[in-house]
Amino acid sequence: MPLLETIHSPDDLKRLPAEQLAPLAAEIRERIIRVTSENGGHIGPNLGVVELTIALHRVFSTPADSFVFDVSHQGYVHKLLTGRNGPEFDKLRQTGGVSGFFNRAESEHDAFGAGHAGTAVSAALGLAAGRDLRGGEGHVVALVGDAALTCGVTLEALNNVAHSARRLIVVLNDNEWAIDRNVGAIADHLNALITSPFYNKANRELRALLEKVPGGARLLEIGRAVKRDTKDFLTARQASLFENFKLRYVGPVDGHDIGQLVRYLEFCRQSDAPVLLHVRTIKGKGCDVALRNPEKFHGCSPFDIETGDAKTTLAAAGTGATGTAAAAAVSVKPPNWQDVFGRVLVRLAQRDKRVLGITAAMPSGTSLNLLKHECPAQYFDVGIAEGHAAVFAAGLAVKGFKPVVAIYSTFLQRAFDMVLHDVCLQNLGVVFCMDRAGLSPADGATHHGLFDITFLRSIPRAIVMQPRDARELAAMLRAALDSGAPAFIRYPRGTAAGGDAFDGSGELPPPVEIGRAEVLRDGADVCFWALGPLCDAALALAERIEKTFPKLRAGVVNARFAKPLDTPLLLEQARKARLVVTLEDNVLAGGFGSAVLETLSDAAVATPVVRVGWPDEFVGHGTTGGELRAAHGLSPDAVFEKIAARLR
Amino acid sequence: MPLLETIHSPDDLKRLPAEQLAPLAAEIRERIIRVTSENGGHIGPNLGVVELTIALHRVFSTPADSFVFDVSHQGYVHKLLTGRNGPEFDKLRQTGGVSGFFNRAESEHDAFGAGHAGTAVSAALGLAAGRDLRGGEGHVVALVGDAALTCGVTLEALNNVAHSARRLIVVLNDNEWAIDRNVGAIADHLNALITSPFYNKANRELRALLEKVPGGARLLEIGRAVKRDTKDFLTARQASLFENFKLRYVGPVDGHDIGQLVRYLEFCRQSDAPVLLHVRTIKGKGCDVALRNPEKFHGCSPFDIETGDAKTTLAAAGTGATGTAAAAAVSVKPPNWQDVFGRVLVRLAQRDKRVLGITAAMPSGTSLNLLKHECPAQYFDVGIAEGHAAVFAAGLAVKGFKPVVAIYSTFLQRAFDMVLHDVCLQNLGVVFCMDRAGLSPADGATHHGLFDITFLRSIPRAIVMQPRDARELAAMLRAALDSGAPAFIRYPRGTAAGGDAFDGSGELPPPVEIGRAEVLRDGADVCFWALGPLCDAALALAERIEKTFPKLRAGVVNARFAKPLDTPLLLEQARKARLVVTLEDNVLAGGFGSAVLETLSDAAVATPVVRVGWPDEFVGHGTTGGELRAAHGLSPDAVFEKIAARLR
Repeated sequence: MPLLETIHSPDDLKRLPAEQLAPLAAEIRERIIRVTSENGGHIGPNLGVVELTIALHRVFSTPADSFVFDVSHQGYVHKLLTGRNGPEFDKLRQTGGVSGFFNRAESEHDAFGAGHAGTAVSAALGLAAGRDLRGGEGHVVALVGDAALTCGVTLEALNNVAHSARRLIVVLNDNEWAIDRNVGAIADHLNALITSPFYNKANRELRALLEKVPGGARLLEIGRAVKRDTKDFLTARQASLFENFKLRYVGPVDGHDIGQLVRYLEFCRQSDAPVLLHVRTIKGKGCDVALRNPEKFHGCSPFDIETGDAKTTLAAAGTGATGTAAAAAVSVKPPNWQDVFGRVLVRLAQRDKRVLGITAAMPSGTSLNLLKHECPAQYFDVGIAEGHAAVFAAGLAVKGFKPVVAIYSTFLQRAFDMVLHDVCLQNLGVVFCMDRAGLSPADGATHHGLFDITFLRSIPRAIVMQPRDARELAAMLRAALDSGAPAFIRYPRGTAAGGDAFDGSGELPPPVEIGRAEVLRDGADVCFWALGPLCDAALALAERIEKTFPKLRAGVVNARFAKPLDTPLLLEQARKARLVVTLEDNVLAGGFGSAVLETLSDAAVATPVVRVGWPDEFVGHGTTGGELRAAHGLSPDAVFEKIAARLR
Repeated sequence: MPLLETIHSPDDLKRLPAEQLAPLAAEIRERIIRVTSENGGHIGPNLGVVELTIALHRVFSTPADSFVFDVSHQGYVHKLLTGRNGPEFDKLRQTGGVSGFFNRAESEHDAFGAGHAGTAVSAALGLAAGRDLRGGEGHVVALVGDAALTCGVTLEALNNVAHSARRLIVVLNDNEWAIDRNVGAIADHLNALITSPFYNKANRELRALLEKVPGGARLLEIGRAVKRDTKDFLTARQASLFENFKLRYVGPVDGHDIGQLVRYLEFCRQSDAPVLLHVRTIKGKGCDVALRNPEKFHGCSPFDIETGDAKTTLAAAGTGATGTAAAAAVSVKPPNWQDVFGRVLVRLAQRDKRVLGITAAMPSGTSLNLLKHECPAQYFDVGIAEGHAAVFAAGLAVKGFKPVVAIYSTFLQRAFDMVLHDVCLQNLGVVFCMDRAGLSPADGATHHGLFDITFLRSIPRAIVMQPRDARELAAMLRAALDSGAPAFIRYPRGTAAGGDAFDGSGELPPPVEIGRAEVLRDGADVCFWALGPLCDAALALAERIEKTFPKLRAGVVNARFAKPLDTPLLLEQARKARLVVTLEDNVLAGGFGSAVLETLSDAAVATPVVRVGWPDEFVGHGTTGGELRAAHGLSPDAVFEKIAARLR
């Protein structure tokens, strides 16, 4: 890679002759395809913005200028161009390597970190308002995907652009995709803009002018004249959505033509008012397998470059939230939790037409696409709009339906108020199936689902549960739908124990009883209470305790419910026990173990409790869950020692 | 009130001759003014929608048709027309009376409850989609204020209207006000629509047609013809924001002309596609004092009808979150917490230009209007957009500013993900000053701030504190700004103890030390740890304990911090004590007491703990905080008994 290796900073990029930019783009594509084929990652979004990112760094100068990338999973090219093309990029998303997202701790070129969609315009507006207050000169560029426009925070920010900052450049990276194909009126509007004869004429004239201009002072001069004309021209008669938000709309422009991009960005750079540049890109460009399957290659596991087939590597297997998934690997790969959920939901929806599935732009990430294919009338994709998804589900529940919102734990944080205010307060039977509850190792801090037990169990009426295996997930989903109450089922990334939710005759298990735990192992001296797949860790710990302390008997309970706890069983066991141990894939602050402490304290049971869960620290990215657990004091040995210390 | 007394249901209203509707409106206004002058309440918004609500109930038939009112503080007229004009309305917002908001438990005419802004279109869309799935015929009407359009959830919902439901009627109640005057591009856009020659011409023609039509079948027939023409006419050349969202835009129409409203609503009722009717209303219409001061009379305390001056009643004094505020009442009324905050912030902002204030459309409700007047360049109102407010603040912090977000505790729930993902994960120095932490008695379930300690203390790096009095609020705000870390200061509705944050020479107290508690009373046997104004309750309880149990000494600590706890002091005290008692105005699940339990458990300190706080139930509305506390087992006697039982 002769060109890429000479780029150690954006300054190096700026020194490159223009004719070498296309070859550089090709090298960058090759580098990204190679690394993501080994490590997994957001290949499609990054291949789509190679030319755009090069053009951005040709025209602007970070860190004096600030780039804010929405979600920022499309930041690999930016990382390669800002001094992170060394071994740290080979270890992309792995322990010791660069993060898959913008990260302020990683580089001064990452002006603002992200991971969840829709925050870029807000953050950029903050940076721009701060600049204006200081009287500074830097430029602030927000790069947002078309899907981010369906997200409430983006729209809240757009409403504030004209009032909050004098200048702001929003680059709309329009590839017609969220993670899945984009939905809603705004997506349709973008299509209309692209095909509008009016805008196309305006754009042709602007392009013709810009193409005459070499750049620099002359551009500024002509650009100003163009802007005046163009502004009137563009806004007088036909308003795009963006003009309603008082952003000057420019575009659409081909996102893979570096020369054109540079000219348009120069034009935006000279703008003395907020401007939106509409750039059309092709997700996965330059990688055949990614182009053929943009949904799968939005974010992917390690894959074979030729065939696109997933590789089975330690990294892939190790993404199980407990770190024990790798150990459970067998020759026939068991299904992922999300697929178990998807299949069970299809069966339940086929049997009861009141059962509906709702996703916020994640049908493949949650396996709700199975419902989409089998029962399309019972399926809703609302776009990246978690708050709306929750309230919309509440409305459906009022009408007697049984909506199931399939959502990642970390994204449910977006809907906390709606869960509390619209669902639980009104006691409406909405079921939330929270995928990625626990670790999402390669994605890191913005994607771990480590807070949901705490914030959900504080809400009256909420039922919060976690299944141990595939059949229990089915039994919990049935119980949740039967309950008519707000119910929350959490399960991690990775493979589900138990293989299949259906028995030999294709039947689902009966519903679990709400609030009833399950004794997995008898033993009265040390009582393990574990949630979900951590029951296996508890069984292993119980054996080890009995070996180390031969006089003690250790029991294990599959708690099933973080709320309501099985209080009678807990108190009965705790009153006899020497120690209660709780295990959860959640922060310790206010989590499941804390619920156990509260229950014992309220009943005046003084039995000591050791709580095993995540300490009060943010957890970064890493190659495997096991590595991350070890880094935060949760290796099997560390956990055992913590317990043993209380028994000596 | 001869007419209003004959209305026991919407059917009675429909039977009334058209010429009696204006006199009915006058009676309704009189009734609302009288009751709110006694009880307080959202007088301005309700006086603005008298004619509109009458027209809605003339044209539509709840509960077969569904009304969803956004926020629903403008639902008083609806309540009076749907069988709630008895003594329950005299006790509006009081114990045993009707709620100040829509409430599904209160009436089948309240299709969906609310209290926070921006959920109406989402909920209505859920109801409409459910209707379509069932093949039903009912109409769904969402009534939203113009301010709700700045709220992300509304915009997420608008993006989904065309895809999720075949028919939906959105009535935009445009009075150019949020709680304070509306801001942002959408507000400007609405103004432009009202003054647009294009829309005015279209509207005149539509009105001319509608005025020729008596209603019923003939209207349907002509209406259809009109729609076809009007639709092409309206959308072909100039797109309003709503047409970008694929809602047919109709209006603007005078919101105080019942006849015209009925005709337009009939037209909307016949629409076979989603439609938005733009209605212009005057907030506070029919009440001189409310018209003169719409900000104050958005939601008000009891007042004198002639002068508009606030009455000092038990109900008003009793809105203090602790229920003890009434007892503290003196001849010169001490300032409210929010005013203490506002004044201190002004002083700090005057001294340090990096200190900024941000509100989400609540400058008067948070007293940030003091900053607006004194330091306008350091003040931002972003509209009802809590998520954006938090990320925008994070962006400002990146640029070296010290943003202070003034927000009600219950509304911060809207920004939970942004607080976690954008502020705390990036360790940015944003300060959140959370007003209404604790009870908001008359507003009820949607406005109490009883969850923030739980969800905030689960977030790494968050500093969570509550001041005992005015000077401590100042000391905490200084500490928060100095810390450069994410910091959260909670304080309740009502009057602040201590009167003033400034000393005799006008100086502020020095910053508190982060994580350091304060011993208020010595006594080693029973240790009270209390947060904020509950320190006074703890002092009273300690005295009572010593009287009842003469051998015991009871100490009181002003904990100040829910996070980080003063762990050294807590452990030192707990190791010697017979009982630790925690007091907090937050749910017990995962709250401050739970943090104390966790700390003692982790240190293997077995001292029993009694936690005093809100049980696992939603808390409704009531006349005073004291009544609500008593209803949930938190009367002073009940609390004392709970503690004493552990000492006998």
